[in-house]
Amino acid sequence: MSEMDSSGIENRPGTSDHNEAPNPPGGPSRPRIVIIGAGFGGVETARALKGAPADVLLIDRNNYHCFQPLLYQVASAALSPADIAWPVRGVLSGQANLTVLMADVTGVDTAARRVLLGAGSVPYDHLVLATGATHSYFGHDEWARVAPGLKKIEDATRIRREILIAFERAELCDSAEERRHFLTFVIIGGGPTGVELAGSIAEVARHALPNDFRRVDPRTARILLVEAGPRVLPTMPPALSDYARERLESMGVDVLTNVRVTSCDGDGVDTEPNGRILSETIIWAAGVRASPAAGWIGADADRAGRIRVTPDLSVPGLPDVFAIGDTALFEQDGKPVPGIAPAAKQMGHYVGRLLKARVTGTQPPAPFRYSHAGDLATIGRNAAVVKLGRLELKGFPGWLFWSVVHVYFLIGARNRLSVAFHWLWNYVTRQRGARLITGDDHEA
Amino acid sequence: MSEMDSSGIENRPGTSDHNEAPNPPGGPSRPRIVIIGAGFGGVETARALKGAPADVLLIDRNNYHCFQPLLYQVASAALSPADIAWPVRGVLSGQANLTVLMADVTGVDTAARRVLLGAGSVPYDHLVLATGATHSYFGHDEWARVAPGLKKIEDATRIRREILIAFERAELCDSAEERRHFLTFVIIGGGPTGVELAGSIAEVARHALPNDFRRVDPRTARILLVEAGPRVLPTMPPALSDYARERLESMGVDVLTNVRVTSCDGDGVDTEPNGRILSETIIWAAGVRASPAAGWIGADADRAGRIRVTPDLSVPGLPDVFAIGDTALFEQDGKPVPGIAPAAKQMGHYVGRLLKARVTGTQPPAPFRYSHAGDLATIGRNAAVVKLGRLELKGFPGWLFWSVVHVYFLIGARNRLSVAFHWLWNYVTRQRGARLITGDDHEA
Repeated sequence: MSEMDSSGIENRPGTSDHNEAPNPPGGPSRPRIVIIGAGFGGVETARALKGAPADVLLIDRNNYHCFQPLLYQVASAALSPADIAWPVRGVLSGQANLTVLMADVTGVDTAARRVLLGAGSVPYDHLVLATGATHSYFGHDEWARVAPGLKKIEDATRIRREILIAFERAELCDSAEERRHFLTFVIIGGGPTGVELAGSIAEVARHALPNDFRRVDPRTARILLVEAGPRVLPTMPPALSDYARERLESMGVDVLTNVRVTSCDGDGVDTEPNGRILSETIIWAAGVRASPAAGWIGADADRAGRIRVTPDLSVPGLPDVFAIGDTALFEQDGKPVPGIAPAAKQMGHYVGRLLKARVTGTQPPAPFRYSHAGDLATIGRNAAVVKLGRLELKGFPGWLFWSVVHVYFLIGARNRLSVAFHWLWNYVTRQRGARLITGDDHEA
Repeated sequence: MSEMDSSGIENRPGTSDHNEAPNPPGGPSRPRIVIIGAGFGGVETARALKGAPADVLLIDRNNYHCFQPLLYQVASAALSPADIAWPVRGVLSGQANLTVLMADVTGVDTAARRVLLGAGSVPYDHLVLATGATHSYFGHDEWARVAPGLKKIEDATRIRREILIAFERAELCDSAEERRHFLTFVIIGGGPTGVELAGSIAEVARHALPNDFRRVDPRTARILLVEAGPRVLPTMPPALSDYARERLESMGVDVLTNVRVTSCDGDGVDTEPNGRILSETIIWAAGVRASPAAGWIGADADRAGRIRVTPDLSVPGLPDVFAIGDTALFEQDGKPVPGIAPAAKQMGHYVGRLLKARVTGTQPPAPFRYSHAGDLATIGRNAAVVKLGRLELKGFPGWLFWSVVHVYFLIGARNRLSVAFHWLWNYVTRQRGARLITGDDHEA
């Protein structure tokens, strides 16, 4: 197997040091760029570095890139995990200067310029932090146990399991109170994820399941969408928020605005001013906070953990370290750039270009500017809201636009065809193909 | 919610007794038939009871019916779990006399005629045990931890994770010995499952992965198929076994026949006479044993736990209890009926017809006779072996026949189309779409 040692790759992860001598000061011949995170931002950075004279290392704890905007479709049994996720190695296999590493990052030693892994560390000359966000329970991390959020494939299969098991338990129980408890679903947070989840759970209950149960009528399920602010989809124009609310209500969702959750437990939620809501299934779509990357480098961060970055997206005082996507706080025109996929992709593309210019010694690009294409959210069958500049779409045109855009942005023809097929199938039959209760309670 | 209590279903699972009074002796007006297990046998029994004047209850610990013959394709990242599994409720939703219950059965009280669940019990007049088989480690249950078998969806995703992680770990490590350890895959058992797994792991290593790794060459992976007997696929004619062996070897699989595994641990296997084989990934395809159903009813069973049944598939001394599929030992012409899907389906269909005759008071069918259609196993791209009566196919015709038969027997047009699409895609591109490492180590 000695041919493996002559592969010519100098950027060797691991603890051995024999080819990790620091580059000579002043002019690294083959700079080492490390990207942490294979989400939208990290993958875009890697792509923009195609052909650059550098050794690029992309590290992620998973072996796949996940298309997070469609996670709710896995949670609601419309798609399979493999439809919305791609092996990172496969996505970037054409890029000769890139190595992919599946590993957990535990910290960064900015003095030694090394990324710390569980076992060992890797050196970097330039570092891109694209580690994304996780759920924020606003100081109540104990709620995570009873109110899962939706950021990872495992979250989606957990929520799918909890929703489907609730109907199974309802079918088993004898008292009307118990059944009501199992058939009440509370979604906390009225942003796009909350709206999409509420709408799709309503469709599952009203269209996919009714023929399959004998003792309960899934159509009697109560689905509550709880939003602390005055309206759902707060980043949309008020008219589209109103439309979303009406559509959700016509699908049987109770939309509670100006209602704040004060506590969550295994039996339900306490709200202000609506009091206690008993429910077996609670889903958290209310808040996110950045990954702990700010702590790794001791950077200045806002309350949500986002690293304040300079106009070129580098970290103040650490010109070789960049933060992008949900990890970064970049203010433009007095407002932070939103934590959405297009923003992460634009930042990733920018940093990739900047680093390519840096390693080739060419003119760096002008400071980063985010260009907001629009907002979109789907509510259910034939119903979505789209705001693109001055264009506003709703109803069937919005839904068609939303579907086409999402299929288009999926990576790889196989996934596009597979998702399009399953959507068409679900649309025609109103069934859900991926109604599997898998894994056990230990699964994260 | 009071309409739920007037659903008219008398066969109420649960602990409440108010409508579970025993039927008057001599002539039950609406007999209760309980089927345990929603595999091939149980589903076929339920189907054959369509329209029968009985309350049929189908109990399974999962909410889906799994097409076990294609589990190895999930394990080797060609298909998603939802492609080969269907919600039981959906499969049988057209059957008005049927209730589906997702629950764990813990035992049977044959005196009281009740099936015991974790919480509560359900009464039966006729009981069908269709609980299938699990792995048999021949008295070494501790091997299960290091050498998973392939019977459930969770087994398949676990094996997929272990295979993919082995390549990731190999990419990370520094010494040639370590890499060899991670890139050695041992499959124990040369029956159809072992042959199919070995062939598909070889295809993953040689075709799907090579472009994606930088430091290791997946093509150098060693795949060993270890069989204690003199040839692989022992139920096939010797010429087809020889063909399978040649094809496997041409794909790079080391086929070791007449080699017995004497011990398994986290680092490899000990064999007789070949000594120690170091390997990170060990897969068990060597033996099965019946589920513990024989113990529930105190029935006479063989060493593999199968219940010896009478010519009408009932349990000796318990004429209202039937055992079918892998749970049953039925000898015909001096040989036990094999533990394969067609046998389970034929037994299920027979017991369903017999019970329908019994509850309608018509003539019961003649004693059960198993009709063996044939044996088939796939080895890889363009290579399968088929023996149907006097017809023997191999190579591309065998493979095409195998593919068509398997798509045909999948339940539901959605799954047929989805599997056909993914197979076509994998065939043309030689890629594997479902290469996701999901779940964590706690997952069963």
